[in-house]
Order: sequence, then C-alpha cells, then structure tokens
Amino acid sequence: MIISVIGAGSCDKDIYRIAEEVGKLISQKGATLITGGLGGVMEAASKGAKEAGGITVGILPGFSNKEANKYVDIPITTGLSHARNIIVARSADAVIAISGGYGTLSEIAIALKLGKPVIGIETWENIEGVILAASPEEAVQKVFELMQT
Amino acid sequence: MIISVIGAGSCDKDIYRIAEEVGKLISQKGATLITGGLGGVMEAASKGAKEAGGITVGILPGFSNKEANKYVDIPITTGLSHARNIIVARSADAVIAISGGYGTLSEIAIALKLGKPVIGIETWENIEGVILAASPEEAVQKVFELMQT
Amino acid sequence: MIISVIGAGSCDKDIYRIAEEVGKLISQKGATLITGGLGGVMEAASKGAKEAGGITVGILPGFSNKEANKYVDIPITTGLSHARNIIVARSADAVIAISGGYGTLSEIAIALKLGKPVIGIETWENIEGVILAASPEEAVQKVFELMQT
Amino acid sequence: MIISVIGAGSCDKDIYRIAEEVGKLISQKGATLITGGLGGVMEAASKGAKEAGGITVGILPGFSNKEANKYVDIPITTGLSHARNIIVARSADAVIAISGGYGTLSEIAIALKLGKPVIGIETWENIEGVILAASPEEAVQKVFELMQT
Repeated sequence: MIISVIGAGSCDKDIYRIAEEVGKLISQKGATLITGGLGGVMEAASKGAKEAGGITVGILPGFSNKEANKYVDIPITTGLSHARNIIVARSADAVIAISGGYGTLSEIAIALKLGKPVIGIETWENIEGVILAASPEEAVQKVFELMQT
Repeated sequence: MIISVIGAGSCDKDIYRIAEEVGKLISQKGATLITGGLGGVMEAASKGAKEAGGITVGILPGFSNKEANKYVDIPITTGLSHARNIIVARSADAVIAISGGYGTLSEIAIALKLGKPVIGIETWENIEGVILAASPEEAVQKVFELMQT
Repeated sequence: MIISVIGAGSCDKDIYRIAEEVGKLISQKGATLITGGLGGVMEAASKGAKEAGGITVGILPGFSNKEANKYVDIPITTGLSHARNIIVARSADAVIAISGGYGTLSEIAIALKLGKPVIGIETWENIEGVILAASPEEAVQKVFELMQT
Repeated sequence: MIISVIGAGSCDKDIYRIAEEVGKLISQKGATLITGGLGGVMEAASKGAKEAGGITVGILPGFSNKEANKYVDIPITTGLSHARNIIVARSADAVIAISGGYGTLSEIAIALKLGKPVIGIETWENIEGVILAASPEEAVQKVFELMQT
C-alpha cells in the first residue's frame, strides 16, 4: 500500500507534529509513504515514517535530488515543477492532506478526479469529497478503512 | 495576450452558450484562446473564438490530435493526461473558469498558485482568490482589467 | 499540417540560414511550424516561417513566455524542462532535425518511437530511420511526400 | 546511490540474463535500482536486484501500478507516457543501457544531455558519450568508478 501525504512546504510546529504523527502511523501500518520531498508537511511526514522504520519516497519538482529533505530514502527527481503533484496523487492508493495552500488544493483536486480517497486535516474544508479527520489517528484509520473497501 | 478558458468536458446548453460568448469576446478583444481542446466548455469557447476570427489553441491530454474539437486551430498533443492542465494554466496571462468539476478545480488551484488572475462563472465558489463574474461580458472585462494592472 | 523543426539552441550562420529557409518553405506550403521556442535553429526556423506569413508555435521548457524568441506567435509555457521535447515531437505530423546535440537526439528518438517521419539536415547520421536531406528544399519536399503516404 | 537500468520492454533470454545480472550487481553494491517498471530488460534488472536484497523502483508510463512487473517494490505511476523516460534518466546518478530501441535511445540522449554517465551493453553503439561494456561486471564496475569521480 502506498499513501501520499500532501501539504504546505513550510508550516508551524503544530502542523509539523501532526504530519510527523501521520507519517509514523502510516509506517507502523506497513504502508510506503510518498510526499513531494521538500520541507514543512512533506518533511515532517517523512521524518515520522522513517523514524518508525518505513520507506519514504520524495517526488521532487526540481532538477537535483539535493532538494530532498533528509528523511527521504528514495528521491525521484522529476524536473517537472508543479506537474510532479500529479505523480504524487496518481501513485498513491489514498491521499492525506494536511494544511496547505493552492498547491495542496491542486493535488486534492487531482486525487479526487482520479477517484482516490482523500482525507483532510486542517486543510481546505469546502471541497466536496474530502473526508475530514480531527487527528492523525483518525486520518490514518479512515484511510485504511477506505482502501479496504 | 493569451487567455485560457477552463471547464467541464461536457455541459448543458446554458453553460455552452456562456462559454461560447466568452470565447467570442476574447477573440474580439484580440487575445488568443487556449483551452484543453476537448468537448463541453472547451469546445464552446473555441467555437466562439474561432467564429469571431481568433486563433484557438487546444492543449490535448491524449496521444492524437484527432481528439481535438473541430474549432481548435492549433492542437498541441501532449500525451501527458491531466498534467496538461498545468500547461493550460501556465501558458495563460489569465484564466476564466466556467462550471467544471475536479479537473477544473485543479487548474484553478494551479493558476492561483502561479499568481494568475482567475475569473469564475458558475464554478467553484468557495476558493479564495477566484473572482466571480455573473456574465461573459463581466468576466472578459474583468480579465482585461486585471491583466493591465 | 503541423511540422516541428528541432535543433541546437545556438548555431553558426550557415545552420541558421538553413533553418530559416526550412521555416520559410514550411510556411509557403501552408503548414504550421512548431519549435521549442528558444534560440539557434528554433529561432531561425520561426523567423523564416513568420516572415513568410505562417503561424509559429513555441513549446517552451521554462516558466515564462518571455524566453520565447521574437518570431514565436504562440508561446506555450510548459515548465516541464526537457519533457517538453516530447510534446514537440508528438504534436507534429513530421519532424525536421537540423544540426543539434543530445537534446535534439532525444527528440529524434521520440519522434521515431512515435512513428513520425524524421528528416535530418547536418544532424545525427547514424540513427536508423532518419531520412537525410542535403538542402532545405529537399527536406521540406521529402516531409510533404512522407506525410501524404 | 541510484542507478537506472534502461532497455527494451521485451527481449530474448541472453539479454534478460545480462540485465538480471546487472540488477544483482547493483544491489550487491548497495545502490537503489530505478527502471521504467515494465517487462523485458526492466523486469530482468528488477528481478536481479530484488533477489539480491535491494530496493527496486519502477517509474511507470501508464495510469495504474498494476502494469509494474512483479519485482518492483515501489511503483511510481506517472500517467505521462514517454515523458516518464526523462524522470528515469534524471533521478539516476548513472544509467546503464542494455539493448533497446528508440525509447532507450531517447533515454540515453537525455541522460547524456543531463551530464550523467551512461554505460551501454549491446545497445546503440554510434552515440558519442556512451561508454561500452562487454559484460554486466564491467558495466557495473565502470558505473561505480564514474560516479566516484
């Protein structure tokens, strides 16, 4: 199982802690984590997943794998800028969105377009189809329930 | 000036008429129209623009220029599926969104991320940054005002 | 009919003159020209085509339409870096390669992979499938013959 | 270290055995293997790498991770068709090309364009910049030598 965590490239400590916990829980359930490989939510989720023993993949927008945060095991260097968002969404069995701005919104929209389950924590709230969760535990539990159906 | 019109690949007659009128007004103002090149809103806007004497470009998702609607003068065949949405947004000086679902939402989000003006007619309403317009005339007028600033 | 001209982003005067003549002949035959939109062969072909009254499209690799040479009528801004080469090849009914290095070779290979006719002038010579031409006239004549079959 | 193995999507037994051996040696040296994730050379290299205990990544062209061969640990589903070739080249520290047709040639060209070391076994021979190797052992040894310089 592959789960993508999407969200802002920079974030405050509370959101960082939420994303780190989400990453940890994903790893503990045995799933592989994909993120966009940069900072903020992407880094936090990768940190949580890696420290829990999981494999972390970063789908990078730029031209060098050096832009990956240090918790990415496998950097995929696309050179495609924002078009890499679509790969993040498409490669996942489900997507968890945490916080985030327009870039995250574009990934949410693509994931919904592709029919993937999308769980949101403190993210865009008015988007029909996004299932909101109040905590990392609830988000990860819901993701696994949805992937099993 | 290049204006992209984005929206649903199939639509009812009212939306078709709105998109056609938007395309016509864009052409009459001397701008080039870009769409995703398929049916519905994309076809209607291309029809309006072409019949008013403008040039129409279609950025196609698939593998053949035969998927372009018949009002596309210049088909660009990307083979990139949904990733072509990003080219539609990025190539434009401004974007007009008419109706539409998740695909349109992803284009709106990318356009806003890129700092482009986005005008919406009967489309996603809860997205901060989208400037709503009640008619084709208002939409096109607002687009040209925003591009001049 | 759409013909893509591919080749080096900078070139000497002889190659420039060849590419300009190729562009002119493409326009005079009524076809639309696509290039990668930058300098060298791309600029020369666009200049020839535009001055002969044709429409020129530039599929740009970067993030701004300002990188287009001044003979491009319709800049398509992809932000996809080298991946835009594939769009240049895929959108064309046939490809003419003039001079060029590894970037041009990648476009030749993709065009051949997609089954497009590829005519070469002073370009990679050892590639099976590339039809060599000794002059702009011969290149454009061969392209139109091949597209008609 | 990440090494991409590129080559034909279907191949005879001799090429399959070479690719499998290359994959095995890459894993034994501790590098991660990236391929295009499909059959032939891609499958063989993944098989060799996986059976030697390494991690295998497949950058898929299509819309579903089900198209990955069974030796791919981490399928990345791009939906980008041939444009995924560029990600395969760009993500690698070095590339080994085995046999292959025009698709492989496009990947060789992109890798050379990006300045990556390219080692070839029974592949396109006339391309300046490709370093030929006569055996899997020689290919993998040369790759590691080149990456260290």
